[in-house]
Amino acid sequence: MAKVGLVMGSISDWPTMQLAAQQLTALGIDYERRVISAHRMPATLQTYGEQAAERGLQLIIAGAGGAAHLPGMLAANTLLPVIGVPIKTRALNGVDSLLSIVQMPAGVPVATMAIGDAGAKNAALMAAQILGLQDEKIQQAVLNFRQRQRQEAEQSEQQF
Amino acid sequence: MAKVGLVMGSISDWPTMQLAAQQLTALGIDYERRVISAHRMPATLQTYGEQAAERGLQLIIAGAGGAAHLPGMLAANTLLPVIGVPIKTRALNGVDSLLSIVQMPAGVPVATMAIGDAGAKNAALMAAQILGLQDEKIQQAVLNFRQRQRQEAEQSEQQF
Amino acid sequence: MAKVGLVMGSISDWPTMQLAAQQLTALGIDYERRVISAHRMPATLQTYGEQAAERGLQLIIAGAGGAAHLPGMLAANTLLPVIGVPIKTRALNGVDSLLSIVQMPAGVPVATMAIGDAGAKNAALMAAQILGLQDEKIQQAVLNFRQRQRQEAEQSEQQF
Amino acid sequence: MAKVGLVMGSISDWPTMQLAAQQLTALGIDYERRVISAHRMPATLQTYGEQAAERGLQLIIAGAGGAAHLPGMLAANTLLPVIGVPIKTRALNGVDSLLSIVQMPAGVPVATMAIGDAGAKNAALMAAQILGLQDEKIQQAVLNFRQRQRQEAEQSEQQF
Amino acid sequence: MAKVGLVMGSISDWPTMQLAAQQLTALGIDYERRVISAHRMPATLQTYGEQAAERGLQLIIAGAGGAAHLPGMLAANTLLPVIGVPIKTRALNGVDSLLSIVQMPAGVPVATMAIGDAGAKNAALMAAQILGLQDEKIQQAVLNFRQRQRQEAEQSEQQF
Amino acid sequence: MAKVGLVMGSISDWPTMQLAAQQLTALGIDYERRVISAHRMPATLQTYGEQAAERGLQLIIAGAGGAAHLPGMLAANTLLPVIGVPIKTRALNGVDSLLSIVQMPAGVPVATMAIGDAGAKNAALMAAQILGLQDEKIQQAVLNFRQRQRQEAEQSEQQF
Amino acid sequence: MAKVGLVMGSISDWPTMQLAAQQLTALGIDYERRVISAHRMPATLQTYGEQAAERGLQLIIAGAGGAAHLPGMLAANTLLPVIGVPIKTRALNGVDSLLSIVQMPAGVPVATMAIGDAGAKNAALMAAQILGLQDEKIQQAVLNFRQRQRQEAEQSEQQF
Amino acid sequence: MAKVGLVMGSISDWPTMQLAAQQLTALGIDYERRVISAHRMPATLQTYGEQAAERGLQLIIAGAGGAAHLPGMLAANTLLPVIGVPIKTRALNGVDSLLSIVQMPAGVPVATMAIGDAGAKNAALMAAQILGLQDEKIQQAVLNFRQRQRQEAEQSEQQF
Repeated sequence: MAKVGLVMGSISDWPTMQLAAQQLTALGIDYERRVISAHRMPATLQTYGEQAAERGLQLIIAGAGGAAHLPGMLAANTLLPVIGVPIKTRALNGVDSLLSIVQMPAGVPVATMAIGDAGAKNAALMAAQILGLQDEKIQQAVLNFRQRQRQEAEQSEQQF
Repeated sequence: MAKVGLVMGSISDWPTMQLAAQQLTALGIDYERRVISAHRMPATLQTYGEQAAERGLQLIIAGAGGAAHLPGMLAANTLLPVIGVPIKTRALNGVDSLLSIVQMPAGVPVATMAIGDAGAKNAALMAAQILGLQDEKIQQAVLNFRQRQRQEAEQSEQQF
Repeated sequence: MAKVGLVMGSISDWPTMQLAAQQLTALGIDYERRVISAHRMPATLQTYGEQAAERGLQLIIAGAGGAAHLPGMLAANTLLPVIGVPIKTRALNGVDSLLSIVQMPAGVPVATMAIGDAGAKNAALMAAQILGLQDEKIQQAVLNFRQRQRQEAEQSEQQF
Repeated sequence: MAKVGLVMGSISDWPTMQLAAQQLTALGIDYERRVISAHRMPATLQTYGEQAAERGLQLIIAGAGGAAHLPGMLAANTLLPVIGVPIKTRALNGVDSLLSIVQMPAGVPVATMAIGDAGAKNAALMAAQILGLQDEKIQQAVLNFRQRQRQEAEQSEQQF
Repeated sequence: MAKVGLVMGSISDWPTMQLAAQQLTALGIDYERRVISAHRMPATLQTYGEQAAERGLQLIIAGAGGAAHLPGMLAANTLLPVIGVPIKTRALNGVDSLLSIVQMPAGVPVATMAIGDAGAKNAALMAAQILGLQDEKIQQAVLNFRQRQRQEAEQSEQQF
Repeated sequence: MAKVGLVMGSISDWPTMQLAAQQLTALGIDYERRVISAHRMPATLQTYGEQAAERGLQLIIAGAGGAAHLPGMLAANTLLPVIGVPIKTRALNGVDSLLSIVQMPAGVPVATMAIGDAGAKNAALMAAQILGLQDEKIQQAVLNFRQRQRQEAEQSEQQF
Repeated sequence: MAKVGLVMGSISDWPTMQLAAQQLTALGIDYERRVISAHRMPATLQTYGEQAAERGLQLIIAGAGGAAHLPGMLAANTLLPVIGVPIKTRALNGVDSLLSIVQMPAGVPVATMAIGDAGAKNAALMAAQILGLQDEKIQQAVLNFRQRQRQEAEQSEQQF
Repeated sequence: MAKVGLVMGSISDWPTMQLAAQQLTALGIDYERRVISAHRMPATLQTYGEQAAERGLQLIIAGAGGAAHLPGMLAANTLLPVIGVPIKTRALNGVDSLLSIVQMPAGVPVATMAIGDAGAKNAALMAAQILGLQDEKIQQAVLNFRQRQRQEAEQSEQQF
């Protein structure tokens, strides 16, 4: 059963958000994948947020660009942790996405990641670190990822 | 009966938004005043947007600050024109509010005004210009306002 | 007879502004198309603004880039609602256009849209939402657009 | 036993970070409070990060300003989730803090909150939402907080 | 007879623009002082620009804030050099004023000064340097100013 | 004899600055063209500034990018008007160039143009407007340019 | 004999730059203090840079604000290391100072510090770290400073 | 024996950082080259910083991008001067790197260079200027570089 809801505001966010998907898979975490536009499908957004917990999800990763309301509005409708990924935009390079996601008012937080690809991948890792608090297998997978990552960084010197 | 819904995300937005209220009154336009937090009262927001037209409203003025989702989410739930007022914020001076409101994706527009006081007053004037298309009395009130405003600007030279 | 004046500061703005034109057409709204440079044709700008209402226009969509004075100066010369579209620029990506359009002083509002393509399309939709207040056919067209748009967003999940 | 490590880069961050502390207390979450300067006490930082999990902490909240390296470097030294709070700064209002915290490279995420007071309070709430996944009492406390918050927002209209 | 037209968009710009006025006086340059709001008095603006040369003015100094259209629109209506002064604004500190003035499209230049007080004073100096090309007395006054300024800077060390 | 000194900080600025050169030529204004790096040839810069007036120049156009010190340092060494052109840069798109040129302290002004190509062309036009104050032929050339420019703008509508 | 030239563009920079002076004194480093305005005293600047090494200075600390040309122009005139301190400015908070100092073109570096007070103090510490490479006493003074600083940071927890 | 430690956060920084390497070689300065990710190899970073001086290094050049913690954390672990190079990033063009490096708090300075290629080359030159204070051969190499650079700039005019 899916533990993570991987939601994006538009199918055009998929090239970025698939990095989150791949990383979740690599860490052995089940997820469901949804396109829910905050502005085109507001009722769906609300229902998704309201039912997320009872449907068994443990947390939500939401990516959106521009006036990015999806992560914050999902957070407003659930008590599950919501991780926000600011999608890079054409005119403002994702600065609009970042501020629309991170500058949430006191009372309803969104755990915001970096703009673009790095943020998408890190959303999956943050999800794993959270789930790993109560799931030893996931925790071990994160540990393995970190060690491999460190080794790759160390060995990259040999590429000179 | 109220023609304009004047909505703000927090009671703390009132010092700015009351400039919109005063200008509406000065132009003879009935409005209703509401505090609807997008993140604390998402269901209320949705209902308000969905029912605005059938309740007889002609347009909505929405002010919010920071990750300002209120105007865009109202726009997602109604076909009435939504005018957005970016509230000045402490850390980013309203740049976050502005981008969160103006950078709406294709499909759901928000008519965005300037940051802060000027934007609030202008929201009322834009509302009057829109309503004036079908209401001669309001149109005349805007015309009077403009003329008085021009006279005051012209006479301000005498203050030197 | 044209209800909307679609004005741009330069023929080079057409690739963006044609998205407004296409959307107006799709919604069944008559418009006239003009190139009026605020800085090269200031007298034309003024005349256009002054006569817009008596010529039967209901509102103006104005796109401009850089030190974008066209929307604000048109607004200064008419009581019709003016919708501004900030054109993306080479050096500053449209941040200059956005601030030149949105930061209007109290007294003369411009209804500002997002930078670039999304803003152009949304200008047409905002025009339709305003005109729809007194024209049931246009209102229905917007409603149809919104429903189709929601369906497309919902069905986009099948593209995974 | 403390479940949350509440760390700040300098005692001067306390006026902001105490909002996180108060919120944690209000939600019934034990925390320990530390001042660890990334640049003045780098060895302490590293040890704190490395031992956080074995000492029984479940997550870390880290606030820092300017070239804010504390949250990211703690994240580099632990598998526990790290929540970052960008402190408002004098010259750049916390934009430097925000970018130094949120723009983490792929591989080591920091869950970033809003700049300043709202971010500090939200860090505590995000911590509670994460801990609430496995602790019903905390989950209930968050639920109560949200309901009270919604009621206060609703009742604030009576302040007009 | 006035050689310089000193124009501002609002009487509220005077605290800044009077620094230009004082500097012009100190350099022995006659000027006329006007308040012409681009948005409230567009016809006046146009007439002023069109008649400036025939009325004997040699150049125009124009200060404005926010969506600052005054300098550019004056430049569009005259062949006299126009010097622009971006007024500091409340929300954006004059960044909006600066971009609205300096980012003029190819074809109609505005000689832009620094934001605020320094810019106002420098506008007068630039005017004097331009007029000094054909007026030895003004040129000498600028030279004297520069020498005095250098001496003051040199002597300021004695203030330690 | 050259009336305008056209100076750039690096030969790599030529693709931009040649637009100034072409416009000067089109307006019949003699100029001399120099590469003077403020940082690589500081003594040359100083001599050039000090001798510009006695060598018969009437004004200087200076283009530079990044930490663009050339226009301001030339202005410090001459009483001739200096027109600054901020060159577009790779990392910051010319924002660094713009601020380094326009934000001159009180006492030494630089007449700043737009970033990049438009700014280079406008520098030549501003030079012509200044020289035109005492040279009827140049004034006529500017007038002709403006008329042609207006006609082209008007006729561009036929390109639809 | 002074090893460090402590230069500022204006006496008004002293409240910031005195933090550098105090730190130099605390570390036992002799310095000379000068006010040299790049724009008001360009010849002095050049001479100071050219003669700095032969006069026995080992490095220069230069603070300036706005279009801050002092550090870069000193660097252009000497082979001594130049440390730049961006002074906080009224309109742009020192962002203009920072970019004017740090964005030096390839060939002439300036070692740039943080905006404002922290940068001034750090300039002195960087000077000490450089001089400490060949002066054991200074190196020891830096070591002592660091240890004291770490202890103060550690003990600051007791202030809770 | 290596006098300079040339460190980068990722092998992907090499295209930029090799400009530092080439310049060091051209100036006859031995260096060692390392990839040390602050976030993937924090223990290595700390050890490298702690042992740099005793291993005979005289200074460190560190390049990193995004939330760039490498230069500042190295500086926290050594008394050697650390020169920071902000790597250009995809979304924010290196503004994030710049602020993460330059905005160090009082007490631990990083000598920050320009964003990207110019900064990398200048890091090597700054290193040479520092080492040249006690090594006549390096000082002469810098002098030769500067003279050649000036000649090339002077001769570039012939390319017109």
